[in-house]
Amino acid sequence: MYPVIEKGVVTAEHVAAFKTILGEAYVFADEETLNNYGHDETEHLLYLPEVVIKPRTAAEVSEIMQICNRDRIPVTPRGAGTGLSGGALPHLGGVLISTERFNSILEIDERNLQVTTEPGVITEVLQNAVKEKGLFYPPDPSSRGSCFIGGNIAENSGGPKAVKYGVVKDYVLNLEVVLPTGEIIWTGANVLKNSTGYNLTQLLVGSEGTLGIVTKIVLKLIPLPKYDLLMLVPFNSLEKAGEAVSAIFRAGFVPSGLELVEIDALQIVSKMVDSHAVPVSDDIAAHLIIEVDGNNMDVLMSEMEAIAELLQQYEAGEVFFADDAQQKTELWKLRRRVAEAVKTAGYTIEEDTVVPRAELPALIKGVKELGRQYNFHAVCYGHAGDGNLHIRIKKEGTANSMGNEEMTKALRALFDLVYKLGGTISGEHGIGLIQKGFMDIVFADANLRLMREIKQVFDPNNILNAGKIFDLA
Amino acid sequence: MYPVIEKGVVTAEHVAAFKTILGEAYVFADEETLNNYGHDETEHLLYLPEVVIKPRTAAEVSEIMQICNRDRIPVTPRGAGTGLSGGALPHLGGVLISTERFNSILEIDERNLQVTTEPGVITEVLQNAVKEKGLFYPPDPSSRGSCFIGGNIAENSGGPKAVKYGVVKDYVLNLEVVLPTGEIIWTGANVLKNSTGYNLTQLLVGSEGTLGIVTKIVLKLIPLPKYDLLMLVPFNSLEKAGEAVSAIFRAGFVPSGLELVEIDALQIVSKMVDSHAVPVSDDIAAHLIIEVDGNNMDVLMSEMEAIAELLQQYEAGEVFFADDAQQKTELWKLRRRVAEAVKTAGYTIEEDTVVPRAELPALIKGVKELGRQYNFHAVCYGHAGDGNLHIRIKKEGTANSMGNEEMTKALRALFDLVYKLGGTISGEHGIGLIQKGFMDIVFADANLRLMREIKQVFDPNNILNAGKIFDLA
Repeated sequence: MYPVIEKGVVTAEHVAAFKTILGEAYVFADEETLNNYGHDETEHLLYLPEVVIKPRTAAEVSEIMQICNRDRIPVTPRGAGTGLSGGALPHLGGVLISTERFNSILEIDERNLQVTTEPGVITEVLQNAVKEKGLFYPPDPSSRGSCFIGGNIAENSGGPKAVKYGVVKDYVLNLEVVLPTGEIIWTGANVLKNSTGYNLTQLLVGSEGTLGIVTKIVLKLIPLPKYDLLMLVPFNSLEKAGEAVSAIFRAGFVPSGLELVEIDALQIVSKMVDSHAVPVSDDIAAHLIIEVDGNNMDVLMSEMEAIAELLQQYEAGEVFFADDAQQKTELWKLRRRVAEAVKTAGYTIEEDTVVPRAELPALIKGVKELGRQYNFHAVCYGHAGDGNLHIRIKKEGTANSMGNEEMTKALRALFDLVYKLGGTISGEHGIGLIQKGFMDIVFADANLRLMREIKQVFDPNNILNAGKIFDLA
Repeated sequence: MYPVIEKGVVTAEHVAAFKTILGEAYVFADEETLNNYGHDETEHLLYLPEVVIKPRTAAEVSEIMQICNRDRIPVTPRGAGTGLSGGALPHLGGVLISTERFNSILEIDERNLQVTTEPGVITEVLQNAVKEKGLFYPPDPSSRGSCFIGGNIAENSGGPKAVKYGVVKDYVLNLEVVLPTGEIIWTGANVLKNSTGYNLTQLLVGSEGTLGIVTKIVLKLIPLPKYDLLMLVPFNSLEKAGEAVSAIFRAGFVPSGLELVEIDALQIVSKMVDSHAVPVSDDIAAHLIIEVDGNNMDVLMSEMEAIAELLQQYEAGEVFFADDAQQKTELWKLRRRVAEAVKTAGYTIEEDTVVPRAELPALIKGVKELGRQYNFHAVCYGHAGDGNLHIRIKKEGTANSMGNEEMTKALRALFDLVYKLGGTISGEHGIGLIQKGFMDIVFADANLRLMREIKQVFDPNNILNAGKIFDLA
């Protein structure tokens, strides 16, 4: 069931050298470990690395990279392995570098509202640590309980708060990075504004581990808002729900969360977690989950009421307000577990489309039409406030997006539509391995040439996470 | 008084070719025009271009670039010429391309809260146009009444609102760019989240016209806040004012403006504009200008009061609340004209340092010490909420930061201090021509190598704004 590729460039001498650098305990070549690190959360894909290593310091990573660069050994960096585009899959074999031992939060700077952390810290752990100081790091993917902050940086992750607070790129101030050549640099400075040379920090964010291995991260924090309110609003038409999203912003509101979940997805996840938090009736097509946050409860209440009233113009059903902390938690838990639930239910192929938010109805309509045309069933959910729609696809006889001709055609048609609507292929999951065949849809040859040559500037021997995002020509 | 460099690579045939492409009316080689386009707002510097051209379309720019690339003619792109780091100075002669005819706002998309504009639109014109639709484009440099939005993108400009709303880079979604080779690309997509390939958009923002010529810009807009309140707070110690800045954020407030103006600067500008808006007494060392904005006036009032109360712990003097629109306008006008006023008063050398905001007191103290050591007088003002301190320097016998040995030593000592404090050379003005000699202070050789090679990827013949930010080795 899994396509497995093995390559044989790592020698016994290399393994010995890695053990000398890291100690015996942090170099693994046993079958179980190789299997564990051969897959992530991307569809059903497995590629075995030749050796898995777990360094602890930038200096160790640097030594490893120098050896791999000299001997042209493919290196795949990996965080928690929660990625959805195959960025951490060692599809060329070689060395897999796990960042799991880079697991310290180094400093929470309350004077400057900054945190310096290592990349192997779990996102939720970081969020909770700064929350204790009254501070807020907003970007939290659905996998926040297990994903690493370093992986979030590699993919430029978003999550439900992005609609008000922005994505990872908006919080990264400075990165310590080991280059493929082994050189160690800081990309910028620990400042809120920076017009000093090319923005290497932003070039690294979202580069999916192809330009360097991040070993330290300085993030901007903001004061933690005191209150939030949450509501769930049913719609009997997906398109009306999409129109309502755009209307909320046009009316001057900026919710801290604005999620859309199609009814099929909600039913599947409700069953899985056995939740009664959400009233689900048969004539509903989709729900919007809407959160507002701030420091004044009266203001939030009146905002929420005004939004609820506005939504009546879009044929919204009865609004369900989450009354207490438990209801809120349960509702968010449902939302966070949608991806897992629909995957378990056979929707194994996931796309991460993003369009200008007013184009959501057109995108949703198009997805359904393509399903009929190409024989797949899709459920849609995601960060509607950002125009970021996750599309989970179930197709008889194919578990993966790659290697099935009809599926490839269908995805090409989907991304053509996304591009026509002013959007692009990935809003927060990255291109990785599985989307790279579609980059020509959204980029001109000149863009792809620039990206390939930038890759070569950083990685002259093409050893670091090669063949992700694009193939070198 | 001005150092003038002339080079002679532009031939009569080139000028004729440009006239064929653009029409006679948009190609200039007369002395007056060359002089007008030979300087910007950077100190006292003049470098004459050989020819000034004013294209109107990306296709025209592309044709021009192909000729210049073929014949290795230096090209300097220029917006409104309000830059403070010499980015638009044609120091190698050659062709100067003015973007002044790219002056249309192409579309205000109220459904998606986006604007598509050409680069030659004046920032304030753009702001007013979107304001009419209830929308807000926050970044506004002091020169907003004359600078171009394209120049703002080249320098990654900030302005007083950056403290709450971020800088230019936080609003740029997508750019149409003519590459030095003449190829025309869009860097990204018109979406709020994007994890599709390397972030070429952010690489272009702040690249000071060295990687491409921007011909179309898609910006994110936000709903316009309904109300704002403004106050002026005197301190009898510069350092206490600096400490107060950090305290405001630690207490959970996020003002929409938090400016610091040292008393010398305020006195100079008050005289120049003959304003009585601001009470200036002799025992004051500095003022903070503090603005809050939002949609609920009661909330703003109580925020302002809470901030004023907090500031008493930092020995603030009597708070002056701007009571009406006219007082607010006058107060902001004072702030916006500080740079011009102190320049006229002989403070011709300007630095644009930025540090983590809690380090402001240390920076201010250091500046004064360096002044005593290196025989200059400095006045400080700027965007204190961002840690972005403008330092205007007056030094007997030297009008420019370049070419005076003692001044160069002094600036090196200043930037050493800034770096030691976790900061960097430029927060919003760019490196351009005048700061490039100091890049080694804040960047390792590997960083500079990466930047130089990225430049070569975009511009293999090094024709576009060469010798800005760094020299090619």
